[in-house]
Amino acid sequence: MKKIPSGVTAPKGFLAGGLHCGVKNNHKEKKDIAMICSTVPCSAAAVYTQNKVYGAPITVTKKNIADGMAQAVVCNSGNANTCNADGVEKAQMMCELTAEALGLKAEDIIVASTGVIGQVLPIEPIAKGIAALAPILSAEGGTDAAEAIMTTDTKAKIEAYEIEIGGKPVKIGAMAKGSGMIHPNMATMLGFLTTDAAITSEMLSKALKLAVDDTFNMVSVDGDTSTNDMVSILANGMAENPVIDAEGADFDLFLSVVKEICTSMAKQIAGDGEGATKLVECTVTGAPTIPLAKAIAKSVITSSLTKAAMFGADANWGRILCAIGYTEGDFSVDEIQVDLSSAKGSILVCQKGAGVEFSEETAKEILLEDEIHIEIAMKQGEAAATAWGCDLTYDYVKINGDYRT
Amino acid sequence: MKKIPSGVTAPKGFLAGGLHCGVKNNHKEKKDIAMICSTVPCSAAAVYTQNKVYGAPITVTKKNIADGMAQAVVCNSGNANTCNADGVEKAQMMCELTAEALGLKAEDIIVASTGVIGQVLPIEPIAKGIAALAPILSAEGGTDAAEAIMTTDTKAKIEAYEIEIGGKPVKIGAMAKGSGMIHPNMATMLGFLTTDAAITSEMLSKALKLAVDDTFNMVSVDGDTSTNDMVSILANGMAENPVIDAEGADFDLFLSVVKEICTSMAKQIAGDGEGATKLVECTVTGAPTIPLAKAIAKSVITSSLTKAAMFGADANWGRILCAIGYTEGDFSVDEIQVDLSSAKGSILVCQKGAGVEFSEETAKEILLEDEIHIEIAMKQGEAAATAWGCDLTYDYVKINGDYRT
Repeated sequence: MKKIPSGVTAPKGFLAGGLHCGVKNNHKEKKDIAMICSTVPCSAAAVYTQNKVYGAPITVTKKNIADGMAQAVVCNSGNANTCNADGVEKAQMMCELTAEALGLKAEDIIVASTGVIGQVLPIEPIAKGIAALAPILSAEGGTDAAEAIMTTDTKAKIEAYEIEIGGKPVKIGAMAKGSGMIHPNMATMLGFLTTDAAITSEMLSKALKLAVDDTFNMVSVDGDTSTNDMVSILANGMAENPVIDAEGADFDLFLSVVKEICTSMAKQIAGDGEGATKLVECTVTGAPTIPLAKAIAKSVITSSLTKAAMFGADANWGRILCAIGYTEGDFSVDEIQVDLSSAKGSILVCQKGAGVEFSEETAKEILLEDEIHIEIAMKQGEAAATAWGCDLTYDYVKINGDYRT
Repeated sequence: MKKIPSGVTAPKGFLAGGLHCGVKNNHKEKKDIAMICSTVPCSAAAVYTQNKVYGAPITVTKKNIADGMAQAVVCNSGNANTCNADGVEKAQMMCELTAEALGLKAEDIIVASTGVIGQVLPIEPIAKGIAALAPILSAEGGTDAAEAIMTTDTKAKIEAYEIEIGGKPVKIGAMAKGSGMIHPNMATMLGFLTTDAAITSEMLSKALKLAVDDTFNMVSVDGDTSTNDMVSILANGMAENPVIDAEGADFDLFLSVVKEICTSMAKQIAGDGEGATKLVECTVTGAPTIPLAKAIAKSVITSSLTKAAMFGADANWGRILCAIGYTEGDFSVDEIQVDLSSAKGSILVCQKGAGVEFSEETAKEILLEDEIHIEIAMKQGEAAATAWGCDLTYDYVKINGDYRT
């Protein structure tokens, strides 16, 4: 598996682009509509938010890819098209306009929206944007597309990898957005994956679900599960590998690269959490079961007190123990060991569930880095899990205290 | 039921006090040890944190009141005596020292600690403090005691009521602390109730549990359930009402006053949440079941995004819908109505799950008040619940970014 340049346009046959159309009407320099298109039909799969309040685009996308096929993606930022009486109608219009502009069918379009909830989506700028964007999609447009789906993100999130399957080079690319209102379960941000692998939609869906469970669903910025978010994948088969239509070595290879790219997206999202100054990775080992390992890792990553301590570079491990302790489930806390580490080294702060002496100075030096690892050894089983989050900062409050203005 | 002055010393036969002994050694002006004592033995009951990591004082108190009897309370602030190898031994010593100073048995002492987790409790200042405090307990010492259990609290929390049971005036008093690391379940802060009611420990325990479920357990400041917190009640019988030893009218009366005082404590705690500028009360009506009504109200109160919007006086009701939507359970979101209100009036922001037009100016005026009500009508049943929280502010981050220094 090797990292290659670019994002969603890295695989053969994918074009993309993004521009400002006017949904973000106070920010004319900010792109707000993105498009991805394959030159040939694709197997398609997606996972969706578990929130009972969900965006109209989710309803329409679910319907459109029910047959396991799609060919293009359209996504606006600046307005979530959620909790609007005319939401589904507008999402449907986005598909029709995109299909018309690209010469496709509306049922082959994946539609997404992200931004403020409960404000009517202005369709005029979007119609103009779609018409302007379709003719200029290109193999160089991946970054523009990634920028056009950003809301409070500070960085565009893209990644691409290449592997060999059945003697053929297979590429996978991705773009994602997500910075606040991010918490498992399921797709809790927007992620769009493209690949030129030949794979059935059933196996594509299986790979995506397995990968998302260990990656996107292990990210938490603020514990709020969004209404709109999803991860989709399009596979156009242009790599001409033997079609992956069952489990086996090829599927495992493909799954490993999907997981790798999802992990990269997950870490990029966590590290760019609203107001974040650092990425926090929490690894739990020696847990009785994988669900428990995941729950403990997520509990620590989500704890406001732990997050605030990370912001302050304060080795307040008691808050980590506390967050472990309120995780639901059956486990013992007597043997827990906690280590904190970063590029500056590692320090043991808790053993057998109790504090040990350590140098506060060394701990501070470790925690001042911008990527922190919290390693929790439960010492009562074989299961492990990793979750990603960020610190809680003044800027999180600032960004969310008045997001709409 | 009438409100009367003072707190834990309002009921007959209760003395209290608090002073600085040196656990908070960087803050010589801050009291850090509190004591409450009844002149006669009491029925006793308590509820405890559900965190699997819990403080040594919890272990000792559980043992001491297993027989339903106690006579005094000792509590220090500044150190939680949790996750320490010698924790139980130290908590036991606190009981022995208190018993010796008051002429009681160690098994009749309720012990509590609050503060930093995982630092060895210095017993010397506590021993000196107990010896100095015991002789000066008085009926005027309720406020001193309430001040001595404060950590990041900005205000002492006390309250007292009087009712008539069986023709006798019965008084109940309370003090509480809690400002961060506050989230249901069970006692998620420290609350100490006293009453001169005559009641068996079984019925006392029942009343406390019922009251706490609808009050203390409906408060969330930051979603973090603490390791140490508990609510205890001592009933010394000096009001000479007919002993309450079964359910019935007298029990209901007693329960109503316990609920009232617990509600007052819950609101005082929420409004004094770390860094809070306002109290947020969320009422859910028309829910299918009471547990669901409670879960929805707590979900909204706990949402970081909603809390930040409240800080910004931003009527971003989409975040409220979002927090309703990710509540676990089986319910519909199609008919939801949301109103926001305060002393400045009320405004409808969402009907049938979708936005309605409203004046942002009026909404801002309403939300700038320091007590905000979020009223959610689910319109699908008869169940209702109320939860209390606060806004998420810069100061929360500041306080928790470096709490230990």
